Amino acid sequence: MKRSDLVADTAITLLAERGMRGLTHRAVDEAARLPPGSTSNLARTRAALLELTLSRLTELELRALAVAYGPDSYEAQGLAARMAEALHIQLADRRRTLARYELALEATRRPELRQIYDEAGRHFRDPAITMLATMGSQDPVRHARSLVAFGEGLMFDAIAGAGAVPTQEEIEDAVRDLLSGMLRRAS
Amino acid sequence: MKRSDLVADTAITLLAERGMRGLTHRAVDEAARLPPGSTSNLARTRAALLELTLSRLTELELRALAVAYGPDSYEAQGLAARMAEALHIQLADRRRTLARYELALEATRRPELRQIYDEAGRHFRDPAITMLATMGSQDPVRHARSLVAFGEGLMFDAIAGAGAVPTQEEIEDAVRDLLSGMLRRAS
Repeated sequence: MKRSDLVADTAITLLAERGMRGLTHRAVDEAARLPPGSTSNLARTRAALLELTLSRLTELELRALAVAYGPDSYEAQGLAARMAEALHIQLADRRRTLARYELALEATRRPELRQIYDEAGRHFRDPAITMLATMGSQDPVRHARSLVAFGEGLMFDAIAGAGAVPTQEEIEDAVRDLLSGMLRRAS
Repeated sequence: MKRSDLVADTAITLLAERGMRGLTHRAVDEAARLPPGSTSNLARTRAALLELTLSRLTELELRALAVAYGPDSYEAQGLAARMAEALHIQLADRRRTLARYELALEATRRPELRQIYDEAGRHFRDPAITMLATMGSQDPVRHARSLVAFGEGLMFDAIAGAGAVPTQEEIEDAVRDLLSGMLRRAS
């Protein structure tokens, strides 16, 4: 494993376990059992460390979610099942998803982080627009936005909110409700 | 204003502007222009300060949202409009909503905070169950959960995610899509 990946993975764990306050260069060195100063050598500033961490997180998420975003054709049934699979994968890695929320909040205060976060978001938003257009949506941009927000809310509620973690089947039912409401005008 | 309210309101602002790392007893004293030690006198530990802040935040949210949760009777049209109004109110106070997300993440690491957070969540969840049952939902508990998660996701996306802030009309359309999908089996 590349040392920069080890540093970023350790930062992700620290963010999930201790929050933004628990992430320091020194804490990463210690948790990764690296010689003091190793993290600083790779990412001198706090901003650089956060950017390295978010870039790695995006890479890990895209890899984990590739299974749910394959090249097959889409219809309402298929999209709901795939989204449920994707959300289930995200919920299974609570650590990664918690770290993403920490970085999302930090991005409200750091424009350079916001840019990486938004760029990553396009990987999920743009395919949703294409799929919804194919499925007959009258307003695929607006509908894709609702769909992504719904997924975000189901995850946030399960991980950081008051809700229990839903099963993949429960997620699929919920997504199917939203899709059927969105697409009803098209039929 | 009671001193404990001033301390909690200042903590809310610090959480929104600087995140969990920026909230310290001393920073609250300084930002509120209180004599050094004032915040410690009110809330000795960090846990006590966080609990005071979240309790105050819940009180402020309930007061702000009372307008959207009046005692009138409900139907699908009315519920979507009210939810849109409630979310619009939340989005208008970005500071309060950002602070709530910071506290939600911190609550994943502090059981005593989790309890206050979940208790507050019931104020929004329980009425949604009643409304959906009245409106003919076949599974009001599951549907209320979806509805709350959808609202959470729309807010998170607009405030900390990649999305622009939606208008009240856009929110209402999105909620109406979900409601129509949920309730279609009932008609």
